[in-house]
Amino acid sequence: MNTADTARPLSATGRTELGRKADRGLADRASLYAVLDAGLICHLGVVIDGYPVVLPTGYGRIGDTLYLHGSSANRSLRAADGQDVCVTVTHLDGLVCARSIYHHSLNYRSAVIYGTARAVADPDERMAALEAVAEQMVPGQWAAVRKPTRKELAATAVLALPLAEASVKARTGPPGDEEEDYDLDIWAGLTTAALTFGPPEPDPLLRAGIELQEHIQALSKRTSAPL
Amino acid sequence: MNTADTARPLSATGRTELGRKADRGLADRASLYAVLDAGLICHLGVVIDGYPVVLPTGYGRIGDTLYLHGSSANRSLRAADGQDVCVTVTHLDGLVCARSIYHHSLNYRSAVIYGTARAVADPDERMAALEAVAEQMVPGQWAAVRKPTRKELAATAVLALPLAEASVKARTGPPGDEEEDYDLDIWAGLTTAALTFGPPEPDPLLRAGIELQEHIQALSKRTSAPL
Repeated sequence: MNTADTARPLSATGRTELGRKADRGLADRASLYAVLDAGLICHLGVVIDGYPVVLPTGYGRIGDTLYLHGSSANRSLRAADGQDVCVTVTHLDGLVCARSIYHHSLNYRSAVIYGTARAVADPDERMAALEAVAEQMVPGQWAAVRKPTRKELAATAVLALPLAEASVKARTGPPGDEEEDYDLDIWAGLTTAALTFGPPEPDPLLRAGIELQEHIQALSKRTSAPL
Repeated sequence: MNTADTARPLSATGRTELGRKADRGLADRASLYAVLDAGLICHLGVVIDGYPVVLPTGYGRIGDTLYLHGSSANRSLRAADGQDVCVTVTHLDGLVCARSIYHHSLNYRSAVIYGTARAVADPDERMAALEAVAEQMVPGQWAAVRKPTRKELAATAVLALPLAEASVKARTGPPGDEEEDYDLDIWAGLTTAALTFGPPEPDPLLRAGIELQEHIQALSKRTSAPL
């Protein structure tokens, strides 16, 4: 993906420089939170038997910790405990149509987080993490539905990743063409892109008389578009 | 991500079993193409210095080869040549609201492809790959805009990945709750999700009198929603 002139890395060299450039890190921490908080799925990268595995999964954030969850039978989640992982969240914001193929691009925001994952064992932290994951997906839902049983908790793996080493990048705005190409008879511009949501569709097995709550109705107003 | 009962893996054990179960592989190849062809970005996983790196990037498909492109200065693309990589494409199709937290889920389609990446050097293959990547992004655009110059080609890295080892998964439909939970006074159902596109926005520097072509107008009708 073209990071072009509008790329806003938290760090310029190596994996990231967040650890070394605390001032820039602080300044960009808000961008990192914004990208994470606007998302629904991340892509978790783990090395298994020497080869990379990239899997989509839900997540949630509590302060400076990112939490992922999944089945305790999930091979990637199990393999990630104590290992280096990379978690990436990407929002596609637009298709950028330039006058040349070379300058075609996508508008986007992305956060790439590196760190050592930790399988969460503490019951309180596990419960808080599951609440964060659920609330990231459907805000207001944790209070509204049945909480996990002991058996369900046992079947759930929770992974924590510190938000200590990350880079945030974005491309915004119209295409940037070569100077001589602005004379060409070619349309240029962009089309915005966003994840959007339809109206609530009741479960066919929903009992009659159950009201649609406000926080569910609010889902269809949601969008991944930048604020 | 919950793959639940509707998970449709191309293979059940190991990384994938596509090589060993040619019959299922053949049957599911259409699903793989469908997931890939509906997408705009993939997440490329590469192992660099022993740790996983997951980066979003555009892609295109020609037959049984996936092509990625990017700047020839891109560290991950350079590192990927001759190495094991994993490329994942995910479509978020819905938020599934169950009566219990445990059965909350996301509807989605995803394709996970494993293989050894190859930096494409042949000029004809490179050009065909760039066309495929551009057409994946904005169908009809390759014919409409200025083609890459020799200098631009030199600044572009193209990576090929055979579509030989892949798994396709999907979750569809309403929540699946525990039998006893259907009596609870809790709303359950889903909200569909899809990547949608706004109307074309001309480049502020667009010369007067340049017509908006049909293939650009068609972009706003695009959606990642399943057919």
